[in-house]
Amino acid sequence: MSQEKKHRTELSTRIRTIGQVIRCKAAVAWEAGKPLVIEEVEVAPPQKMEVRIKILVTSLCHTDIYFWEAKGQNPVFPRIFGHEAGGIVESVGEGVTDLQPGDHVLPVFTGECKECAHCKSEESNMCDLLRINTDRGVMIHDERSRFSINGKPIFHFVGTSTFSEYTVVHVGCLAKINPEAPLDKVCLLSCGISTGLGATLNVAKPKKGSSVAVFGLGAVGLAAAEGARIAGASRIIGVDLNADRFELAKKFGVTEFVNPKDYKKPVQEVIADMTNGGVDRSVECTGHIDAMISAFECVHDGWGVAVLVGVPHKDAVFKTSPLNLLNERTLKGTFFGNYKPRSDIPSVVEKYMNKELELEKFITHEVPFSEINKAFDLMLKGEGLRCIIRMGE
Amino acid sequence: MSQEKKHRTELSTRIRTIGQVIRCKAAVAWEAGKPLVIEEVEVAPPQKMEVRIKILVTSLCHTDIYFWEAKGQNPVFPRIFGHEAGGIVESVGEGVTDLQPGDHVLPVFTGECKECAHCKSEESNMCDLLRINTDRGVMIHDERSRFSINGKPIFHFVGTSTFSEYTVVHVGCLAKINPEAPLDKVCLLSCGISTGLGATLNVAKPKKGSSVAVFGLGAVGLAAAEGARIAGASRIIGVDLNADRFELAKKFGVTEFVNPKDYKKPVQEVIADMTNGGVDRSVECTGHIDAMISAFECVHDGWGVAVLVGVPHKDAVFKTSPLNLLNERTLKGTFFGNYKPRSDIPSVVEKYMNKELELEKFITHEVPFSEINKAFDLMLKGEGLRCIIRMGE
Ligand SMILES: NC(=O)c1ccc[n+]([C@@H]2O[C@H](COP(=O)([O-])OP(=O)(O)OC[C@H]3O[C@@H](n4cnc5c(N)ncnc54)[C@H](O)[C@@H]3O)[C@@H](O)[C@H]2O)c1
Ligand SMILES: NC(=O)c1ccc[n+]([C@@H]2O[C@H](COP(=O)([O-])OP(=O)(O)OC[C@H]3O[C@@H](n4cnc5c(N)ncnc54)[C@H](O)[C@@H]3O)[C@@H](O)[C@H]2O)c1
Ligand SMILES: [Zn+2]
Ligand SMILES: [Zn+2]
Ligand SMILES: [Zn+2]
Ligand SMILES: [Zn+2]
Repeated sequence: MSQEKKHRTELSTRIRTIGQVIRCKAAVAWEAGKPLVIEEVEVAPPQKMEVRIKILVTSLCHTDIYFWEAKGQNPVFPRIFGHEAGGIVESVGEGVTDLQPGDHVLPVFTGECKECAHCKSEESNMCDLLRINTDRGVMIHDERSRFSINGKPIFHFVGTSTFSEYTVVHVGCLAKINPEAPLDKVCLLSCGISTGLGATLNVAKPKKGSSVAVFGLGAVGLAAAEGARIAGASRIIGVDLNADRFELAKKFGVTEFVNPKDYKKPVQEVIADMTNGGVDRSVECTGHIDAMISAFECVHDGWGVAVLVGVPHKDAVFKTSPLNLLNERTLKGTFFGNYKPRSDIPSVVEKYMNKELELEKFITHEVPFSEINKAFDLMLKGEGLRCIIRMGE
Repeated sequence: MSQEKKHRTELSTRIRTIGQVIRCKAAVAWEAGKPLVIEEVEVAPPQKMEVRIKILVTSLCHTDIYFWEAKGQNPVFPRIFGHEAGGIVESVGEGVTDLQPGDHVLPVFTGECKECAHCKSEESNMCDLLRINTDRGVMIHDERSRFSINGKPIFHFVGTSTFSEYTVVHVGCLAKINPEAPLDKVCLLSCGISTGLGATLNVAKPKKGSSVAVFGLGAVGLAAAEGARIAGASRIIGVDLNADRFELAKKFGVTEFVNPKDYKKPVQEVIADMTNGGVDRSVECTGHIDAMISAFECVHDGWGVAVLVGVPHKDAVFKTSPLNLLNERTLKGTFFGNYKPRSDIPSVVEKYMNKELELEKFITHEVPFSEINKAFDLMLKGEGLRCIIRMGE
């Protein structure tokens, strides 16, 4: 099909669907931990301040797995997961002026209303209205779901639910990006890579020549390592329980590896021994409380800064001696690398376009939408980094 | 006595004592929690890199009380406590070039060697060689005490031991100050006031117009409040279990008071309710682990910063949900307000001299050295702020 013809067909499809319920395929999680089932779902038109988007590509982040397993999190089912994706606006609801059909967008699990104290603060991206809420399965406008099967609602996930050919998202959770950017690459910026990169560049802020420890060498952790490399860190110590990650990690500037399983003493002591008292910065990207505590305790006294990124078990408790703090260590945490999704992500996409940031090396697998469960298997086995899931035409 | 004559007498006394053991009065703590006893002690001459000083005035800080009570701390007795003081150099040991007899100095519990990684770092004041060590009762040069009674050693405390007419201190733990500065005022800058002031100005760094909570309204906490006032905070919320402190605190710019005893819910929730989600900054100056946790949890998500200052029980554990961190709160701690004693304290003394900083309002009591136990009683009862103890001629 010629570009021109394709464009006209798309346009007419769009016009046909505006204001209508769309029937399309979605991968539904009916129960915790059970394989997703591709179902035909109905996607209601976008309401006030909402946007309906056609998802072209999605990937899988560990946060989806936690809430799908629902072991340390509240179960909300049936649900459509997915929050790392790229798509095109199909139609917009009342009051939406920033976006129009055809715009390329990245949906983000945490939003930006641009009006609350957080959105107005330079320091925070935790929008009062649209911050991540993992227990909510409905849209904020009317507390209802836009997804249904035979009239029965299927719940949303973190306001994005990208494991569907079409989804409805609050306008504040959509970053409008350069339409030239390949969605099957920049979709990774909609969660994991921005999260890791921002955790280092925006929060840990290592100085040139400093040492950085990264706990967890999945895509988020390796993006954090990439941030450390960009910032000019001279030592980047990767920590993971899965030794298979070490080979992959070499492409990301990680200079040394530590597997806590190889030592009798706590990993924070191993790192302190390697670094004459501790690293200058650490970034935790595992979600495990032990790793969070180690990541804090392995930073150097006097100036060390530790940043928590992993999503913890809901009952997890962070414990440490207050002397570790009095000895002038700093402990912080971040969502989405402190990036404001609408204001900041378009420029992170430009970093990729300008080749300042490589995304290809994070993509180790690819499956068609119909085989989405394979992506789950890969992540559960700790194989590879990101698996691109193409929705297909 | 004319100034001139006094000067000559002092000079000749000094010359007489150089290199000799000095016999003088000191308040000795023979046992944990028992009243100090004024004894005649022998003070050996200063060794390599040490300075012997004549203490003119000292005061009492809560840290002395903790280690004297030795309830949550290791007991080291017999010991000479005291670390907030002002004095004059009597003689210097081998290798000391920065100070000479007659210089006015403030001894500080944490030192500055000017050569280690911490001293060279802009961020840290935790000198590798001279950082606070509360378990050590001897000088680092030869691991021996300079104090004795009939040949039996009496231990030092945090390298200062200012409850003595003469004491020996490492040159790195002495700030050389303007000789015009009245030692019976600026002695407070040798610990408590610098600690609180610096915790706010150097570590919490509140912005103009922001809200700050201060936990514990002793001298350290009120100095932290003073820092908040200087920084232009618009709300300064004082938290203390002792309601008597509230009257005193009014002089320090504290705008609101919260007594945790007046509420059923945790004080962090009370403060969140008062401030639409939390304060911008908090500074903890109590030493109690519950207050430390509350001080952290009462800061606003997105941008709040909490700073721990109080000296905790040695077995205390700081516990919080990691979500409180992921929600973009920052937790820090500091010793001596992050001031480097030799480099920074002389200019804090100048702030007092220029009337940018008032010290008089921290001084609520005064006793002669012979009545030093009264100062302990006052602090144990929570009466007043600082009690000046004059050594007399
Ligand atoms: N805060 C945010 O905004 C945000 C955003 C995205 C992802 N996340 C979280 O980041 C974490 C990483 O996500 P991902 O997609 O890269 O996951 P991933 O599964 O690909 O990688 C996690 C890695 O951590 C390792 N690991 C697990 N426990 C460990 C331990 N105790 N010590 C050392 N290594 C350990 C695993 O072996 C694995 O290699 C997850 O917790 C995810 O929920 C947070
Ligand atoms: N980190 C440092 O460099 C440093 C230096 C000096 C002092 N300190 C510490 O700072 C703290 C304060 O010292 P100070 O001399 O001002 O003591 P202080 O006894 O004069 O004041 C402490 C105040 O805290 C209050 N308090 C106790 N528990 C509380 C709680 N749970 N909630 C609210 N208020 C509570 C007390 O009523 C009292 O008013 C002490 O822990 C001291 O050891 C630390
Ligand atoms: Zn994610
Ligand atoms: Zn907002
Ligand atoms: Zn003190
Ligand atoms: Zn030093």
